[in-house]
Amino acid sequence: MKKKYLLAPGPTPVPEHVLLEMALPMQHHRTPQFNKIFAEAAEGAKYLFQTKQDVLILASTGTGAMEGCVTNLFSPGEKVLVVNGGKFGERWGEISKTFGLTVVWHDVKWGEAADPKKIASILARDKEIKAIMVQASETSTTAAHPIEALSQLTRDREDVLLIVDGITSVGVVDIPMDEWKIDALVTGSQKSLQLPPGLALVCLSEKAWSFADQSTCPRFYFDFKKERKNLANQTSAYTPAVSLVTGLRAVLRDIQDEGLSNVFKRHDRLARATRAAIQALGLRMVAPDCPATSATGVFVPDGVDGGKLVKSLRDEFGVTLAGGQDQWKGKVLRIAHLGYVDTFDIIIAISALEMALKKFGVQIQLGKGVAAAQEILLEAY
Amino acid sequence: MKKKYLLAPGPTPVPEHVLLEMALPMQHHRTPQFNKIFAEAAEGAKYLFQTKQDVLILASTGTGAMEGCVTNLFSPGEKVLVVNGGKFGERWGEISKTFGLTVVWHDVKWGEAADPKKIASILARDKEIKAIMVQASETSTTAAHPIEALSQLTRDREDVLLIVDGITSVGVVDIPMDEWKIDALVTGSQKSLQLPPGLALVCLSEKAWSFADQSTCPRFYFDFKKERKNLANQTSAYTPAVSLVTGLRAVLRDIQDEGLSNVFKRHDRLARATRAAIQALGLRMVAPDCPATSATGVFVPDGVDGGKLVKSLRDEFGVTLAGGQDQWKGKVLRIAHLGYVDTFDIIIAISALEMALKKFGVQIQLGKGVAAAQEILLEAY
Repeated sequence: MKKKYLLAPGPTPVPEHVLLEMALPMQHHRTPQFNKIFAEAAEGAKYLFQTKQDVLILASTGTGAMEGCVTNLFSPGEKVLVVNGGKFGERWGEISKTFGLTVVWHDVKWGEAADPKKIASILARDKEIKAIMVQASETSTTAAHPIEALSQLTRDREDVLLIVDGITSVGVVDIPMDEWKIDALVTGSQKSLQLPPGLALVCLSEKAWSFADQSTCPRFYFDFKKERKNLANQTSAYTPAVSLVTGLRAVLRDIQDEGLSNVFKRHDRLARATRAAIQALGLRMVAPDCPATSATGVFVPDGVDGGKLVKSLRDEFGVTLAGGQDQWKGKVLRIAHLGYVDTFDIIIAISALEMALKKFGVQIQLGKGVAAAQEILLEAY
Repeated sequence: MKKKYLLAPGPTPVPEHVLLEMALPMQHHRTPQFNKIFAEAAEGAKYLFQTKQDVLILASTGTGAMEGCVTNLFSPGEKVLVVNGGKFGERWGEISKTFGLTVVWHDVKWGEAADPKKIASILARDKEIKAIMVQASETSTTAAHPIEALSQLTRDREDVLLIVDGITSVGVVDIPMDEWKIDALVTGSQKSLQLPPGLALVCLSEKAWSFADQSTCPRFYFDFKKERKNLANQTSAYTPAVSLVTGLRAVLRDIQDEGLSNVFKRHDRLARATRAAIQALGLRMVAPDCPATSATGVFVPDGVDGGKLVKSLRDEFGVTLAGGQDQWKGKVLRIAHLGYVDTFDIIIAISALEMALKKFGVQIQLGKGVAAAQEILLEAY
């Protein structure tokens, strides 16, 4: 017998009642009964995004919605600024290049945040730039970029959009779409939304919709205008992912019951507790100056093989954390704390990490990280 | 208390044990444990497609894989022949036009099948045509197109592909991908595969992969070469739809246990039973000369509002059939018999239809259709 725990930055654990709701008998998607579910999910998504705009629900992962932002808002030859501070920043640029856009790469050292001043000066120098594309939380490095500050660079300009990958941020930290005048915001089902992968959500500002009127990139499956038209009829252009949409309605009800501000407080508390534990254990954080609230990245101590550590945690302790990606493969450990996660998930993650490190020969005082986390976790009680 | 029955051409009913398997706790997708599930699903899909080629598993509906066939195999300006005998034939053309291909429309009257001789003469006249795009079963009309005959037009030519939407045919009728030398074959999860919507499967021939080497259409989310590379590592390029892939492995095991030839026989028997019932009731079939095995389309008797009939069947009798689409809205009823469907599902569909028609004032002899179906259904016992 070995109990299993999932603490990776997506997929995240799915609540039992949602798993069961998604296991109800299949129903047809072109019926008033399912239209109601779809419409309620879309309405709940507006609450999540803090917007009055339509939130589109797509049968794809978040990457599909990212592609849709590029193909629905721009035309070949147009110039966009991509904040590239990790694997997902890089993805914005790759998608843009694929569809013929000119990419101005703004490279940020992995683990660091974009500097709004530098970006302001780039925008001032180059008036052809049509958008800033950025992650609210760069999942590959666990660094957060300053979205509110970036939004101040675009909100008063008619000719530049702020396009935000909020895949590990929406429903984790406060990103009020309308208040900050974000122009495109994307999320996926398998993060804070506590669902299996397979759904993407995306919301555009009025300004972005006016860009969509001009865009000439080809798109068919990810055609946002077609989706908006279908949403007005409580459905999607192509067959909706019935069970996931049913699950989406359920989790959005839970999020509304908890209240967004409480959701944000919970995530903040879990993130601070995790960081406190990491610091108490003398481990080095990956993004100490701009830590994401969704996950905490830690450098694996010298002499320890990060791949083996992740494997031991998963297969011996039953605790799935994430390793590093690309240049940080084997060097970094990522402890996620987003979605259906609470106090004792953090206790499990930290205590497992302590035991695994000890087993790997690292000098560590068992319980020291747990105690530091407990101090903060107690705030909730 | 009202029991509900789903007999529409997708989504189809999901077996209870598959619903429960998909409701197991979420797991991380980048683990040896999930890689094994993904690889087993992909291997099972080869059996389903009757191919030695890789079958790609995408997090989208079938339309996404159709888009991928266009964007991965062709370049803007290239010419393709589209068999347009319904809503989904039209979709091949719309996608192709979206990505700058030149479409030669081959219009077929709704409810009729493409004529291979006519297509042969078009191909002989126009040597620039790079592909025939067609549905094995045109779901909107319940007509089947002659795929084997069409494959004889392309199998010996290096410069023309046969691209088949098998969304309501793969796992329903015999379409041996390799034997017939089909170049691209697509299906979706919510049809014969008895899963919720949200997965597409697509398989290319070696000839098609060589087209992919030349194609210049832009694609990112639906990048088949990237998917094939990831499949070699037992995963997909972007986050796989974990629960649906787990379900896919389960249903493919069931299909292997039943045996494809038995699966085909079962579908054929259910289709013949349904047609016999329709004829016994004196109703007029939509596609009498080329009926699909996946669903049977019937013209609604004069004086009956098809929309109201579908609604009554669904909301009063609890039996969800499909109505007509586009030009046949309100005029046609489609009874599906694909996927997790057996003898008594057909009895339910026919008996419900008889009762509903009687209720709507149609002169009908109750039980006459049921009896005709029973005669054929008895073959299995």
